[in-house]
Amino acid sequence: MKAIELQAPGGIENLRSVERPMPEPGRQEMIIRVKATALNYRDVEIARGSYHTAFALPLIPLSDGVGEVVAVGAEVTRFKAGDRVCGTFWQRWVGGSFAMAEPSYQRGGPIDGLLSEFARLDEQAAVLAPPHLSDVEAATLPCAAVTAWHALFTEGRTKPGDTVLSLGTGGVSLFAVQFAAAAGARVIVTSSSDDKLTRAKALGAHDGINYRSDPDWAGAVLALTDGRGADHIIEVGGPQGFDQSLKAAARGAQINVIGYLGGSEGSINPLDIFRRQVRARGIPVGSRESFEAMNRGMTVNRIKPVIDKVFAWQDAAAAFRHLEHGSPFGKVVLDHMQ
Amino acid sequence: MKAIELQAPGGIENLRSVERPMPEPGRQEMIIRVKATALNYRDVEIARGSYHTAFALPLIPLSDGVGEVVAVGAEVTRFKAGDRVCGTFWQRWVGGSFAMAEPSYQRGGPIDGLLSEFARLDEQAAVLAPPHLSDVEAATLPCAAVTAWHALFTEGRTKPGDTVLSLGTGGVSLFAVQFAAAAGARVIVTSSSDDKLTRAKALGAHDGINYRSDPDWAGAVLALTDGRGADHIIEVGGPQGFDQSLKAAARGAQINVIGYLGGSEGSINPLDIFRRQVRARGIPVGSRESFEAMNRGMTVNRIKPVIDKVFAWQDAAAAFRHLEHGSPFGKVVLDHMQ
Amino acid sequence: MKAIELQAPGGIENLRSVERPMPEPGRQEMIIRVKATALNYRDVEIARGSYHTAFALPLIPLSDGVGEVVAVGAEVTRFKAGDRVCGTFWQRWVGGSFAMAEPSYQRGGPIDGLLSEFARLDEQAAVLAPPHLSDVEAATLPCAAVTAWHALFTEGRTKPGDTVLSLGTGGVSLFAVQFAAAAGARVIVTSSSDDKLTRAKALGAHDGINYRSDPDWAGAVLALTDGRGADHIIEVGGPQGFDQSLKAAARGAQINVIGYLGGSEGSINPLDIFRRQVRARGIPVGSRESFEAMNRGMTVNRIKPVIDKVFAWQDAAAAFRHLEHGSPFGKVVLDHMQ
Amino acid sequence: MKAIELQAPGGIENLRSVERPMPEPGRQEMIIRVKATALNYRDVEIARGSYHTAFALPLIPLSDGVGEVVAVGAEVTRFKAGDRVCGTFWQRWVGGSFAMAEPSYQRGGPIDGLLSEFARLDEQAAVLAPPHLSDVEAATLPCAAVTAWHALFTEGRTKPGDTVLSLGTGGVSLFAVQFAAAAGARVIVTSSSDDKLTRAKALGAHDGINYRSDPDWAGAVLALTDGRGADHIIEVGGPQGFDQSLKAAARGAQINVIGYLGGSEGSINPLDIFRRQVRARGIPVGSRESFEAMNRGMTVNRIKPVIDKVFAWQDAAAAFRHLEHGSPFGKVVLDHMQ
Repeated sequence: MKAIELQAPGGIENLRSVERPMPEPGRQEMIIRVKATALNYRDVEIARGSYHTAFALPLIPLSDGVGEVVAVGAEVTRFKAGDRVCGTFWQRWVGGSFAMAEPSYQRGGPIDGLLSEFARLDEQAAVLAPPHLSDVEAATLPCAAVTAWHALFTEGRTKPGDTVLSLGTGGVSLFAVQFAAAAGARVIVTSSSDDKLTRAKALGAHDGINYRSDPDWAGAVLALTDGRGADHIIEVGGPQGFDQSLKAAARGAQINVIGYLGGSEGSINPLDIFRRQVRARGIPVGSRESFEAMNRGMTVNRIKPVIDKVFAWQDAAAAFRHLEHGSPFGKVVLDHMQ
Repeated sequence: MKAIELQAPGGIENLRSVERPMPEPGRQEMIIRVKATALNYRDVEIARGSYHTAFALPLIPLSDGVGEVVAVGAEVTRFKAGDRVCGTFWQRWVGGSFAMAEPSYQRGGPIDGLLSEFARLDEQAAVLAPPHLSDVEAATLPCAAVTAWHALFTEGRTKPGDTVLSLGTGGVSLFAVQFAAAAGARVIVTSSSDDKLTRAKALGAHDGINYRSDPDWAGAVLALTDGRGADHIIEVGGPQGFDQSLKAAARGAQINVIGYLGGSEGSINPLDIFRRQVRARGIPVGSRESFEAMNRGMTVNRIKPVIDKVFAWQDAAAAFRHLEHGSPFGKVVLDHMQ
Repeated sequence: MKAIELQAPGGIENLRSVERPMPEPGRQEMIIRVKATALNYRDVEIARGSYHTAFALPLIPLSDGVGEVVAVGAEVTRFKAGDRVCGTFWQRWVGGSFAMAEPSYQRGGPIDGLLSEFARLDEQAAVLAPPHLSDVEAATLPCAAVTAWHALFTEGRTKPGDTVLSLGTGGVSLFAVQFAAAAGARVIVTSSSDDKLTRAKALGAHDGINYRSDPDWAGAVLALTDGRGADHIIEVGGPQGFDQSLKAAARGAQINVIGYLGGSEGSINPLDIFRRQVRARGIPVGSRESFEAMNRGMTVNRIKPVIDKVFAWQDAAAAFRHLEHGSPFGKVVLDHMQ
Repeated sequence: MKAIELQAPGGIENLRSVERPMPEPGRQEMIIRVKATALNYRDVEIARGSYHTAFALPLIPLSDGVGEVVAVGAEVTRFKAGDRVCGTFWQRWVGGSFAMAEPSYQRGGPIDGLLSEFARLDEQAAVLAPPHLSDVEAATLPCAAVTAWHALFTEGRTKPGDTVLSLGTGGVSLFAVQFAAAAGARVIVTSSSDDKLTRAKALGAHDGINYRSDPDWAGAVLALTDGRGADHIIEVGGPQGFDQSLKAAARGAQINVIGYLGGSEGSINPLDIFRRQVRARGIPVGSRESFEAMNRGMTVNRIKPVIDKVFAWQDAAAAFRHLEHGSPFGKVVLDHMQ
């Protein structure tokens, strides 16, 4: 079968189309015909060699994707041929705390991802794709969407009337806007682009703050909430803006530390966690249980992922470059049927 | 000041208009001019003498109401004159588990309720009324609405995509429909009236089941959920239908045991709690913390209580009879300005 | 290899020693040499044909056991040859809510148990045995001990000073006594035998109540707790005594509905769940995450299972009869090395 | 009555013995005869003027103390004359989340503390003292002990087998050692003094690390836990050592940010919260519900606070200086009966 491999660290140009042997399913495994895959910033970093962990190469990239089951092992009970499934990010994290996720079972590095014609999946590491989504849409769910869900619901218990502050308009942030709005929360989003703020409001955000024209965006959050602050913060900005997140937080707020789109350098005084009485926690994507709950939530509320651009899967390098430099609003997807 | 007292057990006809001394606020108390009050079935039972606890008489009835602060004690900090506030059902239950609610501090029995011109409230036992509600609407919140909120969110962690089954169309059940819909849940409601089902759907219910024409309503719930069952059940029906609730429950479902509109006689085999792996728990209204969270949720989502009928407060007996025999859809309210 | 099969329903006499093919590990599976197995009442019921579910026969019985890893599949990472492991009861329940446990993956029925020389285990369905335990002791953990742990800690959040009421002195109840005492709880145990009460106190119980000499044992619990009642109840008695459990419960108490040693007939009025404001929930053993946490708790606190009697594994029928009729105090174990 | 006031900022020498009017109870208040009070580092900082908030002076210091009820208001129901009670730190925080604690109701600043002959207490802001404790012992509970309890149990769900790392041997840290040991946790303590480590082990700690002789104490924690790290960290050291706390943390660990005994300057990269997947949260003492649960836990487990030194209450300044400079092991208490 065809696949695309990352063959050397240090750049997107090291992605190569190769021939790989057709996978065979183990007793509790299945083979899927990959229909679509989607990119996360993590994939760009792995390709560039700037990810905090280095993986053995060659590696088939991409944790996110959807496919059709074409073969099942003798003991498979959860799925049957013809089912449309997404793989999970953490192959072993069925449910429970993150301690149950085995780090060596992350798809897209260290284990091979889905950027190939076919892929082998443990039946425990897959979920049915929501039926109201196209393949291109369903491909986007495993990493960014599950991260937003895990932060807001599995960990965060977001309920109607809570204030959710979603920083920026990257993949996780836009899913957070859609999920929080569906949950009856009051949603505030930040961006450097008024146009993106307008589009985020169309997805359900109540208010937008342009952090370029209003560098004290935390003050703007406080003003919008009568001084109360945000109950949940999707913190993808990184150390540079973390002080603003602390300032924008309500007493007891939950700061979900997820990413560092603004760079990974900077610092805070950890006593501010005490002084402002917040909870800051890392969000490591989420379990299969969260994924399945999310799919029910998306189905009932007819939530559709925002797609920025679709590339033919053999143009993977172009897609990687678009995510890296194109400032997309929504997900960058590879269509494996093209 | 004028007040209405229940002067003897055994019937609504024992409600009498009386003159009471004007209350004086303690250091951390305030006096409110009552604007509107609302009835719960508990009030009818207390008046009839059929409530499971007998209270000392005379008693001013009604736990639910809203008023304007007209005087504050020397040390009051939470409110000021002119604020519009609702009292809480459990005067001492600020937050935390139900063990913190002191049973002798329930308003409307054993301590005097709000069916009077003025009332004395501890500042800890009051919340600001949501500004988007009229007095008549705000009066309905303290008991039924907080019960539904406490069941679904404080205890239940309802999230988008969960299935909520709300039995009947009484006060708690209709608030549960509205709250669950706002939270992105899938909502199923039961009634003996197709007309009421239609009206419940207008409030956000996705599906309605007429339990008169379909006595195996649990089977209907299973059919609507692909055999999965309901994740949250607002169980106000009582022992007669409890077996159906158990049958309609998903594995791990939360059955909120709240009322007994269908009568208090009947039984279950408690092993069915084990066999069906459900959680059944009593719901005792809720704390002030739940009330305040609910008000934020109602405000953000512009939720308005359903009002069946408004009476002048001096016609309280007629209102009690309407709740008892009138089969209302929504709350029965007394306007203290009429 | 040798194994013992249940070949027909309806009695312990249908256990037969047979020859089975040596199992082969799949990619993520391993083969263990079984060292010891242990019985639960469920196993007796399956053998008698009185269990609420009927399984396909022949079936190798017993969910509980310990063995040494003798072969591993190509992709096994969690274990290596020589490790001493226990299997889990629910092969697929790694963590999270019970909804993640796939019912068709219960060991000892419907899938083959461990009453054999060797057994095949998915590496996800096994845990390292606590090093301070002998094989005979470690064999007892998967079902009864995990059930007690799941009830008290995964679900129950038992903390120092809570009152735990453990009914009877069966397997789950004795583990609950030991675990609750280790957690600093105040532990009350019931039995029909003063001798067994004395032995339960030696395991950490603070008080014992003989329910034969004191049929109003709930009243005795209230007397011991200044009227407050028990915070956690290990309810293994069944419907007959459930009213006493409800009476013995503190406000907000957690009643863990686990078994029916006193018979499965009887009833309660479910409104008592509301009137007494308790939480009643089924306890379905527990996940691998609970098992691993329990093992850490047992290791730190040097807790050892109580063993009533050890049989040679080829005398399995005698062991089944002993559990059925011998009124054991502690676990009945089969030694596979004899 | 006699009282001691802080009359000017800037030093312990500004504590003055004064005459104050005898307090009168409001309707739901009571007067206690103060028997003993205890100091926290916060009190020293308030006296020095280095606390992060400045309070209006004169102020009667000290949040912690115990007394006998000598008068009750007309509506008091929770206590009666003769009861021995401790006040709570947050007068208004009965239960629920920290959002329910009203900051202007902290005892010892901004509202008057207990360093006086008599004091006025809202009955909602007091708990019965554990009967097995002397007055001197009971006086120490409201701030440091409740902080440790809230961190470990209300927030932390500490269970048998968890690893608790308690930094240093200040008041909160020693209570954490005692509570964690009672809960069956494995307890590791750090100190710069081998003598203090020995004494901490006598209180229940399993292991001690001298951070002076072993500056990489996080490495020592990892070595003691087979590389797993601590599940709960009582982080009272402050920014300087926070990187070590992050290194010593297990995946998913709870870092309770409480104090800054090592100074308040320093910084971390907040991305380390993500990289190490920990939860860091401020711990603001705790609610009355936590206090009452703690008292049950202390009573069942016969836990006694560690007292370093007792002063006559009129020698308050000497006691303040001892806490500031004397490097006490355990609490510094004032006896109001001397």
